[in-house]
Amino acid sequence: MVVNDSLQEQIQFLIEIDKLKTIERKTRIIHGDRLENDAEHSWHLAMMALILQSHSNKEVDLLKVIKMLLVHDLVEIDAGDTFAYDTVGHTDKYDREIKAAHRLFGILPEEQAQELLNLWLEFEAKETNEAQFASSMDRLQPLIHNHQNEGDTWQKYNITSEQVLNRNREIANGSETLWTYAQQIIQDSVDNGILTKSKS
Amino acid sequence: MVVNDSLQEQIQFLIEIDKLKTIERKTRIIHGDRLENDAEHSWHLAMMALILQSHSNKEVDLLKVIKMLLVHDLVEIDAGDTFAYDTVGHTDKYDREIKAAHRLFGILPEEQAQELLNLWLEFEAKETNEAQFASSMDRLQPLIHNHQNEGDTWQKYNITSEQVLNRNREIANGSETLWTYAQQIIQDSVDNGILTKSKS
Repeated sequence: MVVNDSLQEQIQFLIEIDKLKTIERKTRIIHGDRLENDAEHSWHLAMMALILQSHSNKEVDLLKVIKMLLVHDLVEIDAGDTFAYDTVGHTDKYDREIKAAHRLFGILPEEQAQELLNLWLEFEAKETNEAQFASSMDRLQPLIHNHQNEGDTWQKYNITSEQVLNRNREIANGSETLWTYAQQIIQDSVDNGILTKSKS
Repeated sequence: MVVNDSLQEQIQFLIEIDKLKTIERKTRIIHGDRLENDAEHSWHLAMMALILQSHSNKEVDLLKVIKMLLVHDLVEIDAGDTFAYDTVGHTDKYDREIKAAHRLFGILPEEQAQELLNLWLEFEAKETNEAQFASSMDRLQPLIHNHQNEGDTWQKYNITSEQVLNRNREIANGSETLWTYAQQIIQDSVDNGILTKSKS
């Protein structure tokens, strides 16, 4: 087939990233008995940003937030999903992921490769308003899932409310309102016996 | 739990739309042996718009295109997926979907409900530049999947190249370049014996 080189690279990238649909997370979907995959997770976060943007502490460029959320987990195609509470897995997470970012985004024409790499790096650094709001979506979503799914991964991996609070406190950097809401979910989960206060 | 009403409605909506992850399409994913669901499909289309925007015939507001693609299949939570080549299913498709749109978007605070309804109606009407480009992503993606998956649904449902050309000709309204590419995929599929020219 004759196609111009740029378009060929773009299509090749779009075929490659279909693999995100096969990367399983630890969290289950709410309306079904299976683990969530990274592609549908990314869609859900983009929808959250669209719906919850007014709760951001600072004004954000919504397109940038959504772009970050669409691409933020692509590196897991090579590096795999690292569980939120896996402290060992987190020691070499960045190294594994930066390598993946270069391989994957490198499939694209150079200018786009650079744009996606920059978006991913900005998301990871959590310094800009957009990255902080995007990151708060990524933290809040599994809380909602676990709250809806009777504790799910909290129960399965024996996670305490203290760990959940520590891990998710940074939601406040993106949205004080959503952090207040997250704390209510966590308290409600403790009250309902689906999240324990301390290691048993 | 005490949460302000708007936020409560927004969260309820975000929990409800998790159901999109359980709505199966007819098309298989590329890197795995199972059907694609609407949520991961919507993510893939949003990524396509991000990567392929320069091929749009007309300049488009990318944020609007991506918003449309994120929400375009939500109505299928109630109305189900209607197969592209199912002429009977298409007779009452719009009635089923408009009813679903009102129920689903109606969960949201009024202003947001109206915004999402308008986005969906604009996508369906295929008149604006954004809707035409978004729609061309929705047409092109299953072509790429079937081409990668040795014919897949074309084979399974005995679809001919004439049907595929007729169904997808409107890609040209969004992007002449991508329609040229789509025709090459279709021709290549015929040449490779994974798509037949006429009913057997």
